[in-house]
Amino acid sequence: MYGEIITIGNELVSGRTIDLNSWYAAGRLTAGGLRVDRITSVGDDPVKASRALKSALENALFIIITGGLGSTEDDITIEIVAEVLRRPLCKDEEMARLIQTYVDKRGLQMSPSLEKMTWMPEGSKMLNPRGNACGFSLIEDEVRLYFLPGVPDQMRYLMDKIVLPELLAHFEPLPVLRQRLFKLYGINEPEIADRLEGLSERYGDIILGFYPNFPENHITISLRGKNETDIAGELKRIEKEIYHLLGPYIFAMGNQRMEDVVGEMLRERCLKISVAESCTGGLIGNLLTNIPGSSHYFQGGVMVYSNESKCDLLNVSPETLKRYGAVSDQTVREMAHGIKNLMGTDMGLAVTGIAGPEGGTKNKPVGTVHIGLAGNEHVHSGKYRFWGTRQQIKMNTAMMALDWVRKYLNGDSFFPGL
Amino acid sequence: MYGEIITIGNELVSGRTIDLNSWYAAGRLTAGGLRVDRITSVGDDPVKASRALKSALENALFIIITGGLGSTEDDITIEIVAEVLRRPLCKDEEMARLIQTYVDKRGLQMSPSLEKMTWMPEGSKMLNPRGNACGFSLIEDEVRLYFLPGVPDQMRYLMDKIVLPELLAHFEPLPVLRQRLFKLYGINEPEIADRLEGLSERYGDIILGFYPNFPENHITISLRGKNETDIAGELKRIEKEIYHLLGPYIFAMGNQRMEDVVGEMLRERCLKISVAESCTGGLIGNLLTNIPGSSHYFQGGVMVYSNESKCDLLNVSPETLKRYGAVSDQTVREMAHGIKNLMGTDMGLAVTGIAGPEGGTKNKPVGTVHIGLAGNEHVHSGKYRFWGTRQQIKMNTAMMALDWVRKYLNGDSFFPGL
Repeated sequence: MYGEIITIGNELVSGRTIDLNSWYAAGRLTAGGLRVDRITSVGDDPVKASRALKSALENALFIIITGGLGSTEDDITIEIVAEVLRRPLCKDEEMARLIQTYVDKRGLQMSPSLEKMTWMPEGSKMLNPRGNACGFSLIEDEVRLYFLPGVPDQMRYLMDKIVLPELLAHFEPLPVLRQRLFKLYGINEPEIADRLEGLSERYGDIILGFYPNFPENHITISLRGKNETDIAGELKRIEKEIYHLLGPYIFAMGNQRMEDVVGEMLRERCLKISVAESCTGGLIGNLLTNIPGSSHYFQGGVMVYSNESKCDLLNVSPETLKRYGAVSDQTVREMAHGIKNLMGTDMGLAVTGIAGPEGGTKNKPVGTVHIGLAGNEHVHSGKYRFWGTRQQIKMNTAMMALDWVRKYLNGDSFFPGL
Repeated sequence: MYGEIITIGNELVSGRTIDLNSWYAAGRLTAGGLRVDRITSVGDDPVKASRALKSALENALFIIITGGLGSTEDDITIEIVAEVLRRPLCKDEEMARLIQTYVDKRGLQMSPSLEKMTWMPEGSKMLNPRGNACGFSLIEDEVRLYFLPGVPDQMRYLMDKIVLPELLAHFEPLPVLRQRLFKLYGINEPEIADRLEGLSERYGDIILGFYPNFPENHITISLRGKNETDIAGELKRIEKEIYHLLGPYIFAMGNQRMEDVVGEMLRERCLKISVAESCTGGLIGNLLTNIPGSSHYFQGGVMVYSNESKCDLLNVSPETLKRYGAVSDQTVREMAHGIKNLMGTDMGLAVTGIAGPEGGTKNKPVGTVHIGLAGNEHVHSGKYRFWGTRQQIKMNTAMMALDWVRKYLNGDSFFPGL
């Protein structure tokens, strides 16, 4: 059950890039009940990479290797494998066909770099023959080796869809494994840890995982057992307890994002929303429109970065701006009302704030944000203080604004008007 | 000059925590002209940690070890060092005094865990006798070992204040290292590889690196040499050649992002811009407003996700929409013109397209995008076909739109009207 992870790339040992691939792979393997013994990162250097591979082959039952799989000259993984394992490179006809299709479809020409990608060590198996995330696997002296691309999306996709299921099927750690992923917003990690204190002792077999994922916090629970029914019952009990302890902060389960959850709620209720964004500058609209079919409920909105545009487009009164300032409850309420009227939607969502690093004052420091939500009858508004960089403040503002819509539609007691 | 980094902690190999310590140390060492050959992470396991330390001792001139230095039972580093290096533990009187002061000051009692921290391997030198970030160093067979705490703030503090200066003083004279980072857009990795074919052979000492970073592609060149002047000259020649081969695709150097470059150009020329976003739903505004001070040139804009809003807000004629459709050159031109007028800016940037996965037709498949840019005299427009997921198509649309602004302000021949 013991495995190793090797990540290859000059960007890793030079500190140019944070090694999120080994972190992701280690987390997924651990959650699956497998164990990672060592993570090694080396540069794009055949000697160092070969040494890492040889050393891992002496110790591990499985090895995940990421990086060095592309078409450029610093992509050395395939040659190293061929050399260390003494396996000659063979042209993979399936890969060649795939690349030809890719080239034809986009009207490109076959090049030496693309040609290079069709050669793989003897005995390799392509991981994903129909997709465009390339990777391959090998078995050497009963050690299972998986070679994945360094591009995070592709690496994660192959890890989840192919590598993990194969390893779990092969090593059969325990017959039944079930997992749940909870996504939380608005609560920090130490507070989550305090609230869940003692949970893993009360449920002996669960493995709890904590993954900060700015600005969210994720919790996984993994449970193993001999039969499906027992596990299902146990999971239900744990899930209930977690909801009891952390309910209001859990905005989604599994792969759902905040914008999925909010979008689904709006769609189910046949409601339309529009947004007026000052400090977020379009981020809320961008998140909402990441969802296919968002045009059913998202009517659009305005980015009102200047005071004039707040007045001209949203009918915010110059009097209000003058008296209370652009970053105030009064202004955000008029913005929410204004965008709802302008776009003729059921709800109007507005944010205004100081994203920094400049522009803060003693009374309104950087990170001061007001959110406004105009619903059917009332306009709700509130003030927050966020911390961090400009982008972090923008992201927290957008998440909180969307969380307001979620709580509002849930009839959460959070809203004074409900 | 070659060193290694070892990070110790179950939270690292289980994927619970991202290993920011090795990333930080690697970045600082590299920037200082030292080289990191390998980064190894192992759990709080004496066997695995000893193995990692022994292996590093065989290869490195210096070793940075973080983690496992605290007072709890999973903190194993000191025992491992004592065992691997056969150095008995001695009570460090200075450390004992420090801890006594700490205990007295806070009205605590000396505990076994605190007592444990006063014992260190023979020959150790405390790194920071007066601070509360504890760490120590050792020299073993001319290899310099630095043991740092896993707490990021303390680790970074000791790294910057003590470890790096000591290493730089010891390993002098260092060869000069210079790096350049080129950021490219609108060209794929195989094409870059083909265009740069043979470059590293022509310039013997350079190291070329390729880093796809969707939707961009990054190239680094690193050059080492004995004196500053030679290197500067050589770098200039290589830079010139890379610009010759790839110039139009290079939008930025170093840490600059597309939105930095565009923002700087607008600011220098005292121009204001506004945006009308259909398929990107706010992404362009979000990127532009990631830059501090963007309010100087970004006036705001509209997210026009519905046909009505295109007519109502931007004055797009219903006739145009009916005849050519929302995704057409005619519409995007009226959008660009409309937003420029509505916001009273010098330039109006507009995009409309089909981000998918639904909504494509035979004539206008998913990924079809039109970009429009209304400048002082003309409105420019063009059509693209992007690939990938909905989010990738949105991102490519936003990047291309900003790249249009860059090229337009550069007076690039790309624009027919210039």
